[in-house]
Amino acid sequence: MTGVVYLVGAGPGAADLLTLRAVRLLGQAGVVFHDALVPDEIVALAPQAEKVAVGKRCGRHSTAQRFINKRLVDAALSHAVVVRLKGGDPMLFGRAQEEIRYLSSRGIRVEIVPGITAALAAAAQARISLTERGVARSVAFVTPRVGEGAAPSSWLDAARAADTVAIYMGAGDASIIREALLRAGKSPVTPVLVVENASRGDSRTVAGTLAGLPDLTAQLNGGPAMILLGEVLRPAAAAAQRTIRRSQAR
Amino acid sequence: MTGVVYLVGAGPGAADLLTLRAVRLLGQAGVVFHDALVPDEIVALAPQAEKVAVGKRCGRHSTAQRFINKRLVDAALSHAVVVRLKGGDPMLFGRAQEEIRYLSSRGIRVEIVPGITAALAAAAQARISLTERGVARSVAFVTPRVGEGAAPSSWLDAARAADTVAIYMGAGDASIIREALLRAGKSPVTPVLVVENASRGDSRTVAGTLAGLPDLTAQLNGGPAMILLGEVLRPAAAAAQRTIRRSQAR
Repeated sequence: MTGVVYLVGAGPGAADLLTLRAVRLLGQAGVVFHDALVPDEIVALAPQAEKVAVGKRCGRHSTAQRFINKRLVDAALSHAVVVRLKGGDPMLFGRAQEEIRYLSSRGIRVEIVPGITAALAAAAQARISLTERGVARSVAFVTPRVGEGAAPSSWLDAARAADTVAIYMGAGDASIIREALLRAGKSPVTPVLVVENASRGDSRTVAGTLAGLPDLTAQLNGGPAMILLGEVLRPAAAAAQRTIRRSQAR
Repeated sequence: MTGVVYLVGAGPGAADLLTLRAVRLLGQAGVVFHDALVPDEIVALAPQAEKVAVGKRCGRHSTAQRFINKRLVDAALSHAVVVRLKGGDPMLFGRAQEEIRYLSSRGIRVEIVPGITAALAAAAQARISLTERGVARSVAFVTPRVGEGAAPSSWLDAARAADTVAIYMGAGDASIIREALLRAGKSPVTPVLVVENASRGDSRTVAGTLAGLPDLTAQLNGGPAMILLGEVLRPAAAAAQRTIRRSQAR
């Protein structure tokens, strides 16, 4: 009797942004495989389970993924409920398809539990809707890097065309992103909000314009950061800059 | 002592896809204002609260929004916790900004609780990642209609440019959407998956290609439906079509 592998979204970090379904499955799991970024407080919701940290290091992706795939199959052969816990939502920049495909090819049943994705947690924290009547009817979720494979269209095309843009895993490449977006025709005064560690106690928000993006990300502390761009961010960016000017005037 | 208004994402429909934070706030709320699409089972998580259904009818938007804004302020003046429950996530096609702006201008504190958005629930149910290494590094979330206001750029630009597209509130306009996407250069054989009532017991999934989109949506039962397009959907679309051919051959 083979078990089921649940790919579960752990959400942005705050434990109370887990779904009820995620919490129930963590309570039932025999084994939990979790990414390095998932907070201990969330992993601790499975006190009875064996925990396996499966963070991937840069440049070691393929080996690590093969190892994870094999471990997931082994776990499903000896446990009824196996949880694979991924930060945010598994279906958005979560590299879930490789695991789904491998498990399915081995006859293991896979179920997906969606989670709160980082861009929506950042928008909630900043109190800024990513869409707005008359201002934004499209949002692009992009990442400048999703691994080694070549993509058929650039993240840049979508970022240029959409009214609002959420850039995942981009804070470390702020200069490159700024240059690419400016070359693609985005205005240098496009409002920008960068939210580090969205939903967590140590969250930090910096705001400005696309022209100053590298200066904004330089103020962060190295945590996962979400870059939001577009007209909908204008009031938030303006308010943040007023605050900065006031504190400089003191 | 004025209360706090929480704009809370109710998620896609399944009650166990609510976040822990949403459930806690529903349990504390003195009043719950909920959209028509939020299931009774979720509204019932606030047994002690006064419930106010605030579904908007087509063409009556402005009047309805002014009425909701005023009712929210009144509620905050007499209750510590006021919950405004919105389907999916409040910050993605949830028209939240109008309420946030109005409440803030009246000195009422607003907090946002993110929710599982329909596109991610549909992807989870279909077991299809919206992004994939070497296939898709951008996803556009668009809607062909977000109200009366003119948008500075078309939903179509983002839909054309992104590798994967999630179209909200589009199933009723399938023919118009197909024509617009084809004219914009999307291939007629772009794989398409349409998920009605994602995450609910009565969910239904139909799959095919962009050329056949109106035939796909014609098979639905009128519930909220998510249209997903792009190469990542190819295996799911092919599998669904094989199932249809097998059932026709019988």
